Amino acid sequence: MNEEEAKALASKMNFRHEENTIIAVLQHFQTKDVLMVGNMNYEALFLTLTTGKAHFYSLSRRKLWLKGETSGNFQIVEGMKVDCDEDAVILLVRPLGPTCHTGNSSCFYRDHLDIRNG
Amino acid sequence: MNEEEAKALASKMNFRHEENTIIAVLQHFQTKDVLMVGNMNYEALFLTLTTGKAHFYSLSRRKLWLKGETSGNFQIVEGMKVDCDEDAVILLVRPLGPTCHTGNSSCFYRDHLDIRNG
Repeated sequence: MNEEEAKALASKMNFRHEENTIIAVLQHFQTKDVLMVGNMNYEALFLTLTTGKAHFYSLSRRKLWLKGETSGNFQIVEGMKVDCDEDAVILLVRPLGPTCHTGNSSCFYRDHLDIRNG
Repeated sequence: MNEEEAKALASKMNFRHEENTIIAVLQHFQTKDVLMVGNMNYEALFLTLTTGKAHFYSLSRRKLWLKGETSGNFQIVEGMKVDCDEDAVILLVRPLGPTCHTGNSSCFYRDHLDIRNG
């Protein structure tokens, strides 16, 4: 997407969450597995749309980050969906490696029984 | 799940988001469509686990709500997954009706082209 299109889209979002962010859900474009949830500010969304790679805003580190910047496991964006009140998006992605920093394909690798007894 | 089990699980979550919440993603337990994203505080998670119906904490209305309380479109929880840093969950749900207040099955009913030109 070119810069003008990205600006037109990003300007319609409601960055109402912490530190002016929206919630971004990464979903595998083929398996439909939910891989990760993060926050995006305007800049992270703009860069995601113009580069085709998922960017986030880290609330804990208070900085923009390109997912995969150190690991090489970029998340290539194949599509995007917007929710009814424009404060959340789904990014349909093709991961170039495990999405989770633990090495699991998804950050959601535990069911509630695992965590309850862990 | 009984109250003791629900407490054991909820006490392991990191309610680090706005107003002491976690992010909850509703995903259809069969189609794997992502239906909605919301926030849950401790009480909302506890009630979700003990009743088997998705509850949320509304940041805008600053109150607990049972999804479907007025519409009857309850979201029956068939499973739950926890992410790597315990600040987000996926609820695998069986919706008893459209999940979105617009009448759409999912809140994510628009792709980015729809919103960009809308």
